[in-house]
Amino acid sequence: MIEDRIKDIELRKKITTAENAALFIKNGMTIATSGFTPSGYPKATPLALSKRIKNNNENIKITLITGASVGDELDGELARNNITKKRIPYQTNDSCRKAINNGDIQFCDVHLSLLPQYINYNYLEDIDIGIVEASEITENGCMIPTTSVGITPTIVKKAKKLIIEINTSQPIDLRGIHDIYTLPNPPKRTPIPILNCKDRIGTNYIQIDKNKIIAIVFTDIRDDVKKLAEPNKDSNLMAEIFLEFLDHEIKAGRIPRKLLPFQSGVGSVSNSILNGFSRSKYDKLQFYSEVIQDSMLDLIDIGKVQIASGTAISPSPEGLNKFYDDIKRYKSKIILRPQEISNNPEIIRRLGVIAMNTAIEVDIYGNVNSSNIMGGNLMNGIGGSGDFARNAYLSVFFTKSTAKNETISTVVPLVSHVDHTEHDVNIIITEQGIADLRGLSPKERAISIINNCANPIYKDLLSDYLKEAMKSKKNIPILLNRAFKCFESLEKTDTMKRG
Amino acid sequence: MIEDRIKDIELRKKITTAENAALFIKNGMTIATSGFTPSGYPKATPLALSKRIKNNNENIKITLITGASVGDELDGELARNNITKKRIPYQTNDSCRKAINNGDIQFCDVHLSLLPQYINYNYLEDIDIGIVEASEITENGCMIPTTSVGITPTIVKKAKKLIIEINTSQPIDLRGIHDIYTLPNPPKRTPIPILNCKDRIGTNYIQIDKNKIIAIVFTDIRDDVKKLAEPNKDSNLMAEIFLEFLDHEIKAGRIPRKLLPFQSGVGSVSNSILNGFSRSKYDKLQFYSEVIQDSMLDLIDIGKVQIASGTAISPSPEGLNKFYDDIKRYKSKIILRPQEISNNPEIIRRLGVIAMNTAIEVDIYGNVNSSNIMGGNLMNGIGGSGDFARNAYLSVFFTKSTAKNETISTVVPLVSHVDHTEHDVNIIITEQGIADLRGLSPKERAISIINNCANPIYKDLLSDYLKEAMKSKKNIPILLNRAFKCFESLEKTDTMKRG
Ligand SMILES: CC(C)(COP(=O)(O)OP(=O)(O)OC[C@H]1O[C@@H](n2cnc3c(N)ncnc32)[C@H](O)[C@@H]1OP(=O)(O)O)[C@@H](O)C(=O)NCCC(=O)NCCS
Ligand SMILES: CC(C)(COP(=O)(O)OP(=O)(O)OC[C@H]1O[C@@H](n2cnc3c(N)ncnc32)[C@H](O)[C@@H]1OP(=O)(O)O)[C@@H](O)C(=O)NCCC(=O)NCCS
Repeated sequence: MIEDRIKDIELRKKITTAENAALFIKNGMTIATSGFTPSGYPKATPLALSKRIKNNNENIKITLITGASVGDELDGELARNNITKKRIPYQTNDSCRKAINNGDIQFCDVHLSLLPQYINYNYLEDIDIGIVEASEITENGCMIPTTSVGITPTIVKKAKKLIIEINTSQPIDLRGIHDIYTLPNPPKRTPIPILNCKDRIGTNYIQIDKNKIIAIVFTDIRDDVKKLAEPNKDSNLMAEIFLEFLDHEIKAGRIPRKLLPFQSGVGSVSNSILNGFSRSKYDKLQFYSEVIQDSMLDLIDIGKVQIASGTAISPSPEGLNKFYDDIKRYKSKIILRPQEISNNPEIIRRLGVIAMNTAIEVDIYGNVNSSNIMGGNLMNGIGGSGDFARNAYLSVFFTKSTAKNETISTVVPLVSHVDHTEHDVNIIITEQGIADLRGLSPKERAISIINNCANPIYKDLLSDYLKEAMKSKKNIPILLNRAFKCFESLEKTDTMKRG
Repeated sequence: MIEDRIKDIELRKKITTAENAALFIKNGMTIATSGFTPSGYPKATPLALSKRIKNNNENIKITLITGASVGDELDGELARNNITKKRIPYQTNDSCRKAINNGDIQFCDVHLSLLPQYINYNYLEDIDIGIVEASEITENGCMIPTTSVGITPTIVKKAKKLIIEINTSQPIDLRGIHDIYTLPNPPKRTPIPILNCKDRIGTNYIQIDKNKIIAIVFTDIRDDVKKLAEPNKDSNLMAEIFLEFLDHEIKAGRIPRKLLPFQSGVGSVSNSILNGFSRSKYDKLQFYSEVIQDSMLDLIDIGKVQIASGTAISPSPEGLNKFYDDIKRYKSKIILRPQEISNNPEIIRRLGVIAMNTAIEVDIYGNVNSSNIMGGNLMNGIGGSGDFARNAYLSVFFTKSTAKNETISTVVPLVSHVDHTEHDVNIIITEQGIADLRGLSPKERAISIINNCANPIYKDLLSDYLKEAMKSKKNIPILLNRAFKCFESLEKTDTMKRG
């Protein structure tokens, strides 16, 4: 076991318990960990830390930096035990979210492609300890990451000390799925030599300075991956609308017949949209994306995928079993890259990625909110959506036209928080239809979005607002004193519907 | 004269009057022209067109696409004569702005790096006629652009027909200042081989399909460049704050001692900030920027500039004289590239450009409004600020803390229009001080911006708002029903000051 997992004999001396490893973590430290989605994050050490703190009533506060979201053993445990003081750059955990929205955790939302360079440029606090999950340490003391790459190479480089968790639930066969290539700091950067989604440009391991390693911990706790909502009538409709639109664009000569690489966002909606491709005529699909969810594996299974490049595999528990069982086959179709490469503007614009992301709400001007409900309650964060939307060949946003049992219109006069401005949104699709915003003025956009995307029960409300706003004739027909009224009525009457 | 300016003998047959050339422009057409800032745009043909329309009471409506803003002979004349129906992607002209804010012109605001690809991808209306200014047509029928490149190569490629204005006020010596390199459509793109601001990667001419040329017009109307406001106490203070910050960052190891390339935004404020460099210890400055304004020429004069790469030269009238008088010297320091290259995310992120842009207003969360006063009255447009801010090594925004005789606080609870989200803004500088937002949560940002950047006369107003908003404890301390109150009081009482 140990022999299989740690080939570097000298390093075996660093093996210790999670409890011992956790002792290195002190009050006030900045801890950075591997993990991107609930995949490939350290589990045993944070569990040991939170257990000890719970038992001893210790007061330890840390800043936690990860690639993106991580599992409950890390984000949940630390939040519930008031250990996390600051959280950067993204999360999806119920307890962590609650603590952020309670004011107990300070959250800093960052474009995921920028985070590694913020660390490299020393923009954030120095990383006292990095904790990274590996499936294996090679003969030369290099580590093989697991189900995500994220910022692991950056952590290994910049952290003062390192704890490595060897996770034996992660198959040794993962070796070879990763492609590790990182960027030097300017002025030393050169072109990133990816010309095609399938290009491998780096190594399949991460080099480590062995002197930094203070502990190696064994664990077999599995990735806490989550089941996503099944495709439903609305998401199937959105998928159909999108596929029809694709057809139309190809016929019009605006998208090449052989298609271009797709990026597919995170969450249930994105997963469902992708599911729609299984029923389409399209095959030889290429993905230059961030997260590989269930639908992507399904598309691989039915032979529709040429290559899926991302930074994390994050299927459901069953999807993960399926992946583990047939890892060699999947490996020929999947590449996991550091997030500074998977989300890199240079590559996204070069390859001409068609970006498909999900909105929490959109406004009639074409702005998108991806992250904060009612302007201030964090859902997850902007994640990589900005990396893709701004640099895409075509930027598409999906959202159901209503939320919470139709009490909320996701098409509003003005979004309560802006993550993506009108300049970054080409197409909006709801189950009601599609608004093609390319080349339109604010007034034209407003009309198109209300007519095509809003739910019929909210059309009057939006049209009345627009009619009134149009009277001002401004470039952007906006009424600052009425723009947020729908949120006020939601707060007062539990619905945006007019009384 | 003709011999000097049109070396291709065959093409001399196409010479005609501006009046004749203007006859080609018909109602409903989409016209794209050269020009970026009031530099290098066609002048004689639009003047002839508007004159005819004024005299004959004709009804001609067109869509006008340019690289960015253009001079009054084009944007002003066409707007005043109700010729422009739609305007893409940026403008700075009083008459045009008025027509947009009156609802007479539909304006579509686009990131400037994206415009050429929108045209190439056929996202916008087909270009019926392209009108481009040249200093010269070479032996092989290639054109030499003048004081800007912008989208000229794209127009020449995509327009169905072309009118060329040979402007004899533009020196023949401009030849050699341009570096023309354009991007094919995906999937055919390869890395752009710029590793250094000074790298020339293309040709100094633009290839033309001669069959498209329907008219060649001679003119000697000069670029309608404008004088910018002189540096004043406030802008000098901002420059000092920025230079001190640079020092500090270098000492902290966050910016290399030899600096990195700078981008300097458009307008008076940016020009004044740049002016500050003349008093600094820094030399061998490199610019990977968009527009070359007066201060950049001054910095070249005093030997502080290694290279200034941009897409347009747009100094004051005196600055332009100076440039023309000594063009050979300036040419060794200046490169003009197509805007798809000057503003390209790939290069901006590779080189590590330090982006310096100007805000109309900022909010306490770190969002920036660059374009629309009171949420809807267009000033100019987003321009290239988004190309630079999102991809920069460091994204800095400048604004005076008040506008219009202190009746307006440019630091507001919530910007009335978002061009740059909190994710794209690292540093905010006003004459009051500097807010360093890196790694901060929304609450921390709010405190820092109010404390460091707001004008003392508006601090209470902002602090009171924040105090109340903090009670909700949300991730982002926002009060949707109070966020825009300052704009309401401005409208009612002509000041944001409390009664
Ligand atoms: C936007 C995002 C939250 C959507 O996730 P999803 O799982 O597809 O969407 P759902 O429709 O299930 O919505 C998630 C929740 O938000 C709620 N919601 C959605 N829109 C809402 C709105 N306008 N107001 C209030 N709640 C809303 C839903 O009701 C649901 O709540 P529940 O969990 O209590 O059921 C998710 O895509 C995200 O975090 N995006 C930002 C990051 C990103 O885009 N990354 C991709 C880069 S590659
Ligand atoms: C933001 C921008 C308008 C500032 O221009 P500037 O010349 O430096 O700024 P000024 O301080 O002179 O302001 C311009 C006008 O806006 C007014 N203004 C500024 N802030 C204001 C506010 N918050 N409310 C109302 N008016 C405001 C000023 O009073 C001034 O009005 P005036 O012309 O009547 O005197 C300009 O930089 C711009 O258009 N930016 C967007 C595009 C961009 O950034 N391009 C750079 C990419 S390389």
